[in-house]
Amino acid sequence: MTRLFDRVALIGIGLIGSSLAHAMRKQKLAGEITGYARSEATRTKALELGLVDRIYPTAVEAVKNADLVILCSPVGTYGALAQEIGPVLKPGAILTDVGSVKGAVVKDVLPWIPAGVNFIPGHPIAGTEQSGPESGFAELFINRWCILTPLPEADAGAVDRLAAFWRACGSNVEIMTPEHHDLVLAITSHLPHLIAYNIVSTAADLEEVTSSEVIKYSAGGFRDFTRIAASDPTMWRDVFLNNKDAVLEMLGRFSEDLSALQRAIRWGDGDMLFDVFTRSRQVRRSIIAAGQDTASPDFGRGAPKSQ
Amino acid sequence: MTRLFDRVALIGIGLIGSSLAHAMRKQKLAGEITGYARSEATRTKALELGLVDRIYPTAVEAVKNADLVILCSPVGTYGALAQEIGPVLKPGAILTDVGSVKGAVVKDVLPWIPAGVNFIPGHPIAGTEQSGPESGFAELFINRWCILTPLPEADAGAVDRLAAFWRACGSNVEIMTPEHHDLVLAITSHLPHLIAYNIVSTAADLEEVTSSEVIKYSAGGFRDFTRIAASDPTMWRDVFLNNKDAVLEMLGRFSEDLSALQRAIRWGDGDMLFDVFTRSRQVRRSIIAAGQDTASPDFGRGAPKSQ
Repeated sequence: MTRLFDRVALIGIGLIGSSLAHAMRKQKLAGEITGYARSEATRTKALELGLVDRIYPTAVEAVKNADLVILCSPVGTYGALAQEIGPVLKPGAILTDVGSVKGAVVKDVLPWIPAGVNFIPGHPIAGTEQSGPESGFAELFINRWCILTPLPEADAGAVDRLAAFWRACGSNVEIMTPEHHDLVLAITSHLPHLIAYNIVSTAADLEEVTSSEVIKYSAGGFRDFTRIAASDPTMWRDVFLNNKDAVLEMLGRFSEDLSALQRAIRWGDGDMLFDVFTRSRQVRRSIIAAGQDTASPDFGRGAPKSQ
Repeated sequence: MTRLFDRVALIGIGLIGSSLAHAMRKQKLAGEITGYARSEATRTKALELGLVDRIYPTAVEAVKNADLVILCSPVGTYGALAQEIGPVLKPGAILTDVGSVKGAVVKDVLPWIPAGVNFIPGHPIAGTEQSGPESGFAELFINRWCILTPLPEADAGAVDRLAAFWRACGSNVEIMTPEHHDLVLAITSHLPHLIAYNIVSTAADLEEVTSSEVIKYSAGGFRDFTRIAASDPTMWRDVFLNNKDAVLEMLGRFSEDLSALQRAIRWGDGDMLFDVFTRSRQVRRSIIAAGQDTASPDFGRGAPKSQ
């Protein structure tokens, strides 16, 4: 791969920031990588792991002379960060982010960005339930989609350069509006996380069934939900606070549909249940066909198969 | 392993029945295995795969002279099967099942069982989203729990023999009442499946977000739900029809809790969201510590890690 940027600044070095660092190193995409992390422990770890060439306790220092600045901290921090770094961003630089919401990011960040800096919001649809600088790996973005939501006035050349960067990290790139992104992600990511967090919480509060029973018998399905419910609480708090309308809309539909299933159970309407349960299989098949999940039973986890 | 039963009859050869056949063959637990399957395709496949020594188009033929009879078909079929096979069960034989509900099974099966036959309901908490005679494998039950719900008048020796059988298949065995089983499974298995089926259904019905977008961006969390929503529709219809009270109880609690999260999102109560999201992590850790899920990020699926 060729170098795409002379200096890249990572603002926040968690799962996504550290994975980007690994991917850039592996593909030699950046001349040098600078970083900012709020905590000293993360700064020390990031240097130790060789994720960055230099790391700073302020974002202002980290972005100096950077050609590409990537916000990789929880979305709730973007507004204050943009206000801080706006004045020192290099003319012609690209400022992007990896946040799971896009409308609120545009609203929070755009006012602080000087003319001549290319602000192009982005969101790689990739992750694991782990967090922190040690959780990253170079292959996280391979065959995953990265959505860019450039504003109408965005410079086409800058968008192309950012898209090339994500492709070099292994991603497929799609362009859409921030509003559409927020609707799509509300159903494919935000609502699933909310429901997973909720059922884990419901289970923890039961009196008739003990926590140790929930844990022992979790292989019946519950354990699947605990994986995404183990995701970073700060990141996810910020997602829900910043994509309120779309999440409430999807949640309303989900609850309506759940009431219909509840009613079918109460009245013994087996045909209705069977119909709903049948069409789900096709969705799973399509996701596997699209390369977005493994075809191995049980995600390929568990005891090895004998044949 | 020593032979535990001279003749074992499998009534239904799907994921669980075929996995039991593999486990019995591997551990040499049965002198011979007979089977019953409703469809000719399954009967042919079961013989082809060597799952059974002989297979019959009627359950009556399959259970003749069997020392252990295991009902492995959807729970909705048990009543009629019990009525059919009750009169021909061998005196002293053990009749068990693998159904995901236990109260309804006792109600449906018990009236047809003659004195002298040991009816001991059971439920291995193990499975994958696959179904059919080709989906089974010998290791399915290893390190999973199998719950037995013997009636108060059950013969202790027979319960011990059945427990020894499951342990020989790799399982840990727990004893509880059918009522308690149905409550525990309602939260650890039935509600998770219902919610997974429901969100897949909600997503499929959207107008603003296309099905192809749901599939493309499913790595944001949605894809996790599609795995269990790909489980066998007949089996799951029967589960919900036969564990109505416990499922409705758990569903009521889930919906209440979800309303509280909805309200927190609407009013921007980040502290409440953060608290709920934080305690979920501990549940995940406990499940991994209990050996009921893999510690690998993302279930260990996806691109290989570089280090």
